[in-house]
Order: sequence, then C-alpha cells, then structure tokens
Amino acid sequence: MKRSKETVMQALRSRDMLLSSVTKAAEDLDKTINLLGERLEDWYGVYFPELRAEEKMKYAEAVLAIDRENLDEGRLTEILGQKAASDIVAQSKSSLGAKLSAKDLDQCRSMARTIMTLAAQRAEYEAYQKELALELCPNMAEVGGPEIAAKLVSHVGSLARLAILPASAIQVLGAEKALFKHLKNRNIPPPKHGIIFQHVKISASPKAVRGKIARALANKLCLAAKADAFSKRDISADLKKDFEDRCAQIMAEYERAKAKGKVSPEMPAPAAQPSTRLNR
Amino acid sequence: MKRSKETVMQALRSRDMLLSSVTKAAEDLDKTINLLGERLEDWYGVYFPELRAEEKMKYAEAVLAIDRENLDEGRLTEILGQKAASDIVAQSKSSLGAKLSAKDLDQCRSMARTIMTLAAQRAEYEAYQKELALELCPNMAEVGGPEIAAKLVSHVGSLARLAILPASAIQVLGAEKALFKHLKNRNIPPPKHGIIFQHVKISASPKAVRGKIARALANKLCLAAKADAFSKRDISADLKKDFEDRCAQIMAEYERAKAKGKVSPEMPAPAAQPSTRLNR
Repeated sequence: MKRSKETVMQALRSRDMLLSSVTKAAEDLDKTINLLGERLEDWYGVYFPELRAEEKMKYAEAVLAIDRENLDEGRLTEILGQKAASDIVAQSKSSLGAKLSAKDLDQCRSMARTIMTLAAQRAEYEAYQKELALELCPNMAEVGGPEIAAKLVSHVGSLARLAILPASAIQVLGAEKALFKHLKNRNIPPPKHGIIFQHVKISASPKAVRGKIARALANKLCLAAKADAFSKRDISADLKKDFEDRCAQIMAEYERAKAKGKVSPEMPAPAAQPSTRLNR
Repeated sequence: MKRSKETVMQALRSRDMLLSSVTKAAEDLDKTINLLGERLEDWYGVYFPELRAEEKMKYAEAVLAIDRENLDEGRLTEILGQKAASDIVAQSKSSLGAKLSAKDLDQCRSMARTIMTLAAQRAEYEAYQKELALELCPNMAEVGGPEIAAKLVSHVGSLARLAILPASAIQVLGAEKALFKHLKNRNIPPPKHGIIFQHVKISASPKAVRGKIARALANKLCLAAKADAFSKRDISADLKKDFEDRCAQIMAEYERAKAKGKVSPEMPAPAAQPSTRLNR
C-alpha cells in the first residue's frame, strides 16, 4: 500500500505530467476555437453574409472591429489584407443580411470576444509549453522544435517511457491507425511519419523523400530523448548537425535521381527500415 | 436572380435564424465546458488529486477558490457541500499530489477562469434564448418551456418549417437515429420522444406512461407552433390546461392499472399511434 502510494507520488512529481497537460490543453483549445468559430460564422452570417475570412481568429477579430452599416475599410484591410477587404466593402453595399438590433448584435459579438480570449490563452499556453519543453527535454526541443517534443512526450505519457522507444516507433507515434492497418494487411504501406510530420523539413519536402527524412529525424529524436531522460548531457548541437547533413545528402540523391528521370515527386519512398537501426 | 436574392433576404430577416443560432451556440458552449473541464481535472489532479466535484463548474470554482497548502474549509463547504468538503480536507492532509510552483499553478488556474467565463456566457445565452423564444413562439414557449421550443425550432431550422410538421414528427424530433432504426427493422420499437423528453412531465414520469405523455405534449406543441407561425393568437392557456388534464388522466389510468397489477413501472408503453391523430 505504502509502496504503491509512493509510486503514484513519484509519477505526479515528475514535471512531464505538466508538459503533457499543457499540450493537451492547447489541443483542446484549438478544437474549441474551431467549433465556436464555425458557430460565429453561422450566427454573424445572418447579419453580414458577405464577410469571409480564411481563419476563424481573423473572422472573430473582424466581427469585433467593424460595423456593416459604417464600414471602416482601413481597419478591415489591416485584418484581412487589401484584396479581401475591398471585395467585402464592394459586396456590402448591397448586403443580403438582415438588420439586427444592437442587443442581438451584442450577443453575437460576445461570442467573438470569447474566441479572442481563447486564442490569447492558446498563445500563452504555447509559450509555457515551449518553456517546459526546453526545461525537461532540451535536446529534443532543439532537434525537433519544442512543440513536436511536447507532443511526443504527451502522446506516450512521460519522457521516461518515450526514451525507451525505438526510433521506428517514435517515427510513427500519432499515426497508430495507419500503422495497425498496415500490420493487419501487409499490402497497405506503413505510415512514414506521425507527429513528426509537423517538422518543416518533412512537411515542406517533396513526397518522395519525406519517409527518408522522417527516419533520419526519428533517429536523432530517439537519441535526444535518451540523453534528456538519462544522461542529461547537451548533445543537441551534434544531433542537429548530423540531421542537417543527412537531409542535405537525401536531397542531393533525390535531385540526382530526378535529373535521371528516375523518380516523380509523387513517388512514395520505400517502406521504413526495421527498427533496430538506431546507430547514427 | 433577383427573386432568389429576395428569398435569401427573407430567410435571413426572419428572427428564428437568431433563435436557432443562439440555441446551437449554447449547445456548443456545453460541449466546450465539458471538454475543458475534463482537461482541468487531469491537470489540477497533478497538484491535488484528492479534489473531486460532481460538476465541472463546481470543480473550476473550487480550483480558483482554494489552495491545497492552506485549505479554507468554510469556502470549500460553500461550493461543494458539507460532506464532500470535510472528506477532501481530511484526505488533503496526506495528499499524493506534487508540489507545483506558483507559475505552474497559475497556468492551470487560467484554465479554470476560462471555464467560469464560458459558463457565465452560457447563462447569458440561456436568458437571451428564453427572451427570443417568448417573442417568436410564445405559445410553444408557454406549453413546452422556452428551451424545448428553441431546440425544436433550431432543429428543423425555422418556425415556418416546424409549423407544417405533424405532431408525430415533432414527438420524435431529435431521435432520428432511433426512428430510422425502427423504419429499417420493424422489430425494433419506434422512439417515444426526442427533444421533448427534456420536459419534466415526461422525464420525471414512470417509463410506462412516458410515451403517452409525449404524444399528448407533441399534439399541443404542434397546435402551438401553428398558432405561433400563422394566426399569432395566444392559445397557450387552453393548450396548457388540456395538456395537464390529459396528463392527470394518463396518470390516473396508470395508477388503476398498477393497483390491478397489470403494469410494472418498467413496462414500455405501446407504440405511438399513426400521425393523423392531430385533433385534441
């Protein structure tokens, strides 16, 4: 009884619980902002159906800043950019929207205010998440960026658990659905990347090399996690350099193959190698 | 082109769009409060796992009001009641939670503050919804309560559309899944109530009579919707009296049958009658 109590205390005391909490909280806020943003578009659309914005945040900002009856084009341009603003101003001259009383509009605007508050909180959590990530897993945060590091830790629950995973598992964390589909039916190719796809070196690269870069990044993150959890040494500079060298090499090979006409940018990379290749 | 433009304007001008928007907004806020409330329980649980509350709102209030290191039992009793508060105070003496810095706690408390803000907005929307319902569909709001009236209108999209539905459709609005299951396979009994289940006369009655009371309420709501949409006369007093008489009659029959041992409280009511019985 006492022993199990101590185990619980130990687990709660480790600060990666906080990292995981704030990461999930930020994700929940994203969901909420989307949900309430759609509701606001529906609602405000009764009054001003011509107003459109690409992001929910910008839409909410515009709702608070402008008034259909008395449009301030300068303010609208600041928020939505020149082109969108002048389109909206032109269309608003013959708006199809209903006239609403000040009271009805106020209720609708209070929703926009809520969305802005949630977005501010989201930004605050992001800063806090970054701070915690740099404190708890500095190597991972340096190599993959604090957000990816935080998401990986939050996905498996703790840094200690992440540090004993092989690189091949880290590579596909967050893509479990695709992974199990592949394990059930080997004709379906395995996923090439999970959470780490958000890394700009992967998401901004041509499809054909993403798998290779994902493997390289997962290798480095795996070593970084072990250093963060056990040795606490700072090896991030080495890891970063190795990763960048490997990326350059992959891209050079890709360019050579493309010059010979051997790959199309859409060709999938070969399936990931077995997970034992941890040495860099 | 001009005609269709006018139709759109007509639709937007009708104020039931607002009723429908605010009803959906209130539902979205409920979802959000639940989602963020669960997140808060996870997060604050790292610090104070012994704190528990039945409602997410009370939990958030407690998080903001108390401090584990220096518990104010009086304040906790105000929020959670005598028994829960003294339990928590007793357990907190040997709390398993981790020590958190003021900064870490602040981030967590900001989530609780957000939940309180959302709940306040929810309450405001409820008042506004009631006001709109009493303005737009006074008969329905009187007979079924403003919240049920608002939900029915929001579910079909407009009062005009609701007013042409038969009573049997109003009875099962919101229970579409169960209805279509029944239509596909007649061995599955039809649903007895959808949105109107929230009416206290139905939800607080024994299971065996709920179907009958739901049919009676749907009949009255159907007439009320027609009056609200077309004649604009106030017939709510008559409808209310009829409904209460019918409820009393149903309950009296039920009590007689129970005295003879013919029904158990759990026996399902017979399936709803065909939808043509609209006359009261």
